[in-house]
Amino acid sequence: MSFLDDNFLLQTETAQQLYHAHAKHMPIIDYHCHLSPKDIAEDRRFKNLTEIWLEGDHYKWRAMRTNGIPEKYCTGDADDYAKFEKWAQTVPYTVRNPLYHWTHMELKKPFGIEKILKPETAREIYDDCTAMLQTNAFSVRGILQKMNVEIICTTDDPIDSLEYHQKIKADNFGVQVLPTFRADKAMAIELPEVFLPYLQKLEEASGVSIGTFQQLLDALKQRHDFFHELGGRLSDHGLETIYAEEYTEAEVKAIFEKALNKQQLSQEEVLKFKSAMLVELALLDHAKGWTQQFHLGALRNNNTRMMRELGPDTGFDSIGDFDVARPLSRFMDKLDNSDQLAKTILYNLNPSQNELYATMIGNFNDGSTPGKIQFGSAWWFLDQKDGMEKQMNALSNMGLLSRFVGMLTDSRSFLSYPRHEYFRRILCNLIGNDVESGELPASEMEWYGQMVENICYNNAKNYFNF
Amino acid sequence: MSFLDDNFLLQTETAQQLYHAHAKHMPIIDYHCHLSPKDIAEDRRFKNLTEIWLEGDHYKWRAMRTNGIPEKYCTGDADDYAKFEKWAQTVPYTVRNPLYHWTHMELKKPFGIEKILKPETAREIYDDCTAMLQTNAFSVRGILQKMNVEIICTTDDPIDSLEYHQKIKADNFGVQVLPTFRADKAMAIELPEVFLPYLQKLEEASGVSIGTFQQLLDALKQRHDFFHELGGRLSDHGLETIYAEEYTEAEVKAIFEKALNKQQLSQEEVLKFKSAMLVELALLDHAKGWTQQFHLGALRNNNTRMMRELGPDTGFDSIGDFDVARPLSRFMDKLDNSDQLAKTILYNLNPSQNELYATMIGNFNDGSTPGKIQFGSAWWFLDQKDGMEKQMNALSNMGLLSRFVGMLTDSRSFLSYPRHEYFRRILCNLIGNDVESGELPASEMEWYGQMVENICYNNAKNYFNF
Amino acid sequence: MSFLDDNFLLQTETAQQLYHAHAKHMPIIDYHCHLSPKDIAEDRRFKNLTEIWLEGDHYKWRAMRTNGIPEKYCTGDADDYAKFEKWAQTVPYTVRNPLYHWTHMELKKPFGIEKILKPETAREIYDDCTAMLQTNAFSVRGILQKMNVEIICTTDDPIDSLEYHQKIKADNFGVQVLPTFRADKAMAIELPEVFLPYLQKLEEASGVSIGTFQQLLDALKQRHDFFHELGGRLSDHGLETIYAEEYTEAEVKAIFEKALNKQQLSQEEVLKFKSAMLVELALLDHAKGWTQQFHLGALRNNNTRMMRELGPDTGFDSIGDFDVARPLSRFMDKLDNSDQLAKTILYNLNPSQNELYATMIGNFNDGSTPGKIQFGSAWWFLDQKDGMEKQMNALSNMGLLSRFVGMLTDSRSFLSYPRHEYFRRILCNLIGNDVESGELPASEMEWYGQMVENICYNNAKNYFNF
Repeated sequence: MSFLDDNFLLQTETAQQLYHAHAKHMPIIDYHCHLSPKDIAEDRRFKNLTEIWLEGDHYKWRAMRTNGIPEKYCTGDADDYAKFEKWAQTVPYTVRNPLYHWTHMELKKPFGIEKILKPETAREIYDDCTAMLQTNAFSVRGILQKMNVEIICTTDDPIDSLEYHQKIKADNFGVQVLPTFRADKAMAIELPEVFLPYLQKLEEASGVSIGTFQQLLDALKQRHDFFHELGGRLSDHGLETIYAEEYTEAEVKAIFEKALNKQQLSQEEVLKFKSAMLVELALLDHAKGWTQQFHLGALRNNNTRMMRELGPDTGFDSIGDFDVARPLSRFMDKLDNSDQLAKTILYNLNPSQNELYATMIGNFNDGSTPGKIQFGSAWWFLDQKDGMEKQMNALSNMGLLSRFVGMLTDSRSFLSYPRHEYFRRILCNLIGNDVESGELPASEMEWYGQMVENICYNNAKNYFNF
Repeated sequence: MSFLDDNFLLQTETAQQLYHAHAKHMPIIDYHCHLSPKDIAEDRRFKNLTEIWLEGDHYKWRAMRTNGIPEKYCTGDADDYAKFEKWAQTVPYTVRNPLYHWTHMELKKPFGIEKILKPETAREIYDDCTAMLQTNAFSVRGILQKMNVEIICTTDDPIDSLEYHQKIKADNFGVQVLPTFRADKAMAIELPEVFLPYLQKLEEASGVSIGTFQQLLDALKQRHDFFHELGGRLSDHGLETIYAEEYTEAEVKAIFEKALNKQQLSQEEVLKFKSAMLVELALLDHAKGWTQQFHLGALRNNNTRMMRELGPDTGFDSIGDFDVARPLSRFMDKLDNSDQLAKTILYNLNPSQNELYATMIGNFNDGSTPGKIQFGSAWWFLDQKDGMEKQMNALSNMGLLSRFVGMLTDSRSFLSYPRHEYFRRILCNLIGNDVESGELPASEMEWYGQMVENICYNNAKNYFNF
Repeated sequence: MSFLDDNFLLQTETAQQLYHAHAKHMPIIDYHCHLSPKDIAEDRRFKNLTEIWLEGDHYKWRAMRTNGIPEKYCTGDADDYAKFEKWAQTVPYTVRNPLYHWTHMELKKPFGIEKILKPETAREIYDDCTAMLQTNAFSVRGILQKMNVEIICTTDDPIDSLEYHQKIKADNFGVQVLPTFRADKAMAIELPEVFLPYLQKLEEASGVSIGTFQQLLDALKQRHDFFHELGGRLSDHGLETIYAEEYTEAEVKAIFEKALNKQQLSQEEVLKFKSAMLVELALLDHAKGWTQQFHLGALRNNNTRMMRELGPDTGFDSIGDFDVARPLSRFMDKLDNSDQLAKTILYNLNPSQNELYATMIGNFNDGSTPGKIQFGSAWWFLDQKDGMEKQMNALSNMGLLSRFVGMLTDSRSFLSYPRHEYFRRILCNLIGNDVESGELPASEMEWYGQMVENICYNNAKNYFNF
């Protein structure tokens, strides 16, 4: 067992057996990511390793900044190789950070490079990868096929025309690419400068004129239907925390009218509106048998200076400490009360709340669907070995690991598919350790193999109804 | 070391030695559980394995629901074997959940069955166990004796006549069964439909007419005295979180009068009343040298639909994220200030607060009694290997593990005594690992053996004054 | 690998190699502690082991109280050997607590005693150590030199004359002893009985008459300059949690005037004042390139009775559960917004918030200084193996361990320097485990050696500009 060899992270023979016989060959269903449909539709080729690897990667930028690298080499106007050189210089400083593993796993696959990236190897690695990126095998579609990806769910705005999804579907290149309904902007009533222009675009996209709250819902339903036609089976929400205030229909109507008239809203009105929207969007999902996803617990855009200079999603977000139990319970209970709670995946960013989430899902698992309410895979800062182990241990101890729909990349990068391999190795290793320490009976190996296949692929396949 | 063999969970020779020479034979003091005194008084026999194992077991129901099993087979009217079959079908899906361990430990002891429960073995296991349950050795008392139980503390309402405890005492069958004073309903002033009828019953039970707050306290004291006469030495509270508002005597009197007159109480008044009641009950415990127990951190009855259909304690509870440090500190400080703080056990349901609890107890350990304030054993969702290890590690790092009063079942099931064995194995394993990794000196084995015996039995024996 | 041998805590050959070749010989920079400058200036000798080891050690007192030892033997008037005997009696009960390790590490170094402390060995150990303490080699300076200490930063009040620091500097005995600016009392506006007399002393020390808020700032700046002249490069704050309320200059002026006039302040006014003071002190640090330290998350003085009898810092503090993310973000953002955020170390007492802190620092690492914002080493109750591992794992997973400025004692005791050794062993062990499990490439050993040296010494050397 040495770094990145065949048995990487597989500390026992049982783990090795589970991985090689059951996990390795399963196709990938990447049911939540932020890949660009345009890039897939156009089968983009990247001009060099910096373009495919460093552009848009806020994980790497954060590490570089912490390592004392000036912004010029992160998001700035330094030339591509200069940026890469600074990254190569930073890599040794990322020892024990997931970036060290991701970096070398991504060089190994798809590029076949097994060298350690550091200043001494930077030039060679850059040139080799850049040369490969010029070939057919390393176009966007080439990479996806090489990684054994079967289904990708992108993240899309309700106003999106989904033209790229249509083109991809028409091309039928072997990977299904489906849209996901993320209506964050339709909830942003506290930001009139975002909300009002957005309503206009939503009117155009849906063909529904929006003068009342009901019309807003009608317009969103039109788009939801359209996403459904193109194979969409998931929604997603990027919230700090769940909104679950009490509200009446009359209140929400009035709040929406105030917003249309550009009147100032109180904090309470904003929360009531958002609470109502969450419920209404959840009802759309339930009606069509979709799965709703909630990404919870991030405190975003902490650095005003950098927000001003670089905008959102540039590496200035962190973990929040919101109270989560009561609002989460109230929100799901409200929907469950009339048996209209859709299948739901809760992703948690604060690891100290893992056990809270793992027990919360049990409150609404009612026997109707195996694993109906899911505790989502370790997310963002937690998307690493320690984070995954903690998520899977909490889920195991307080729920059923066996019914877990497993891994997703949540990534913007076409090179991030080795994270599925990473997850699978960690999963097999956990079970392998349990078997070899006698915590699980060795006699049931066949079942563990099945379980691994289920978590890697079958559970997601069965759960989402793609 | 293989699944459920003699050295189950004992990863080192030191651990094995500690367990077999010191832990295994110690009698069990189960100082907190929810066993039925009636069943013990009547020496109940269970008609089949479903009756003794699945009825009332919300852990199993939760797992079955998550596994997609309809309610009919959990709490519904399916026949006993059909329910068992669904449970057997679910067991393989509980791999890595404590239910997998508990299930097989309970089959092994008392039934002597070492087969893995799954659909293929369901019928045979059901029939074998059901046959054994017809014999004398498997009556309630038979099981308790087989499990080496010395003392059981049940959980009882102050209005309880304790007739079953009296009968058990009179029978003198070898296991002491003592009542525990749990006055939750006497605090439920926010629910007049519960509170007022309860006061009537309390009047009847105590012979004290309750027209003032002082008379309420007098009535409770009468019952507390009565519990004491029958050997009760513990109280218990099932609270979400500690109430520690400021209040005056005059305020509390007035609030109680309002409640008697069926006037609406404000949230603040409810909290003041509860805060006062907690203190008054704590003073009763202190006066008699009792130990008070607080079970903290559960968010209960999250699912209104199922609450409506099935009532409380049916598997729809989870972990809350209450602020605990300040109120807990204020409550204990108020009592300690006049040196009237009783021995106290704090059970915590949110594992991210383990270290907070482990340091909080140190604030009120004043040298008067070894381990006077206890951080209770891992509770409910945490009552599993990972949860116990975390609780014992936090207690070790921030307090004295050696003074720990150890394990209790907190269970409604007569089959749950192997959990003491489970705890003891985990305890011995932790110490064994430390010795074999050189973190503890091998020279002090005699002391570790003594420490293990203390935590398994002697500490509780000395602490509670039964 | 056995208890306290050369390879104590070093579970792999790689770890042993890293420790012995790279960690062991690095000098110690103890950049935050509470040692007495007077004791160093006067090269104090302790009259016996109790005086140097038990006086002022609230860790030991807490353990003794929990073990049922009366206060007389902790902080009371029992004679020195009687106190020691009670401590010796308690030591076996501290098995698995860090006190068990610290105790034996401190006996081994500097005293060279390898016996286990317990009642049977108490007399001999006491006498041997006491005899050694009479020799030159065991004066305060003797001990510091023996422990290879290069720099010590004490913790000092702005009003301190720093006379002892001046004397130490003049003596030039081989260890640099530098003052740290801790202005807690200048923020204590809610306690007029502390605040107003303090302002008088500050006037005297600074020569600035303080009649306005600006003059308070001027006086503090005068002291800050003075500390700087004597080599001070750090400030420190002992806060429960960060204050980050909105305020205006006019408001703060008015609040300060009210305080001078002994008018009652509202809670909001107190928070505004403290929020402003934090910012102003931070600006002083930034202007001179200092590092500011924040110790966050302690709930102090929980036990009013003991506070009354013994005062603060006597062992009645614990871990709080404050909301930390938003105020911490707001405070740092306010300063960063004008690029005036000083180098900052955040120490966290609540381990469930480790990951929150580890991601928070990334929001303000802007490439200007490697590791500019630091997640401080595990503090107080967390200053033990489990706590250090969790802190280093969180930092590794969410930041750059390689840029960590490493260990400090934060101690009041001249015997606590083995904690640096403890830290270094744990650090080497973490990396060693990763290498031997194949999580890190074995080929890069030279770099890991460098990294270890950096974390033990070079990073601090480069970061603080002493």
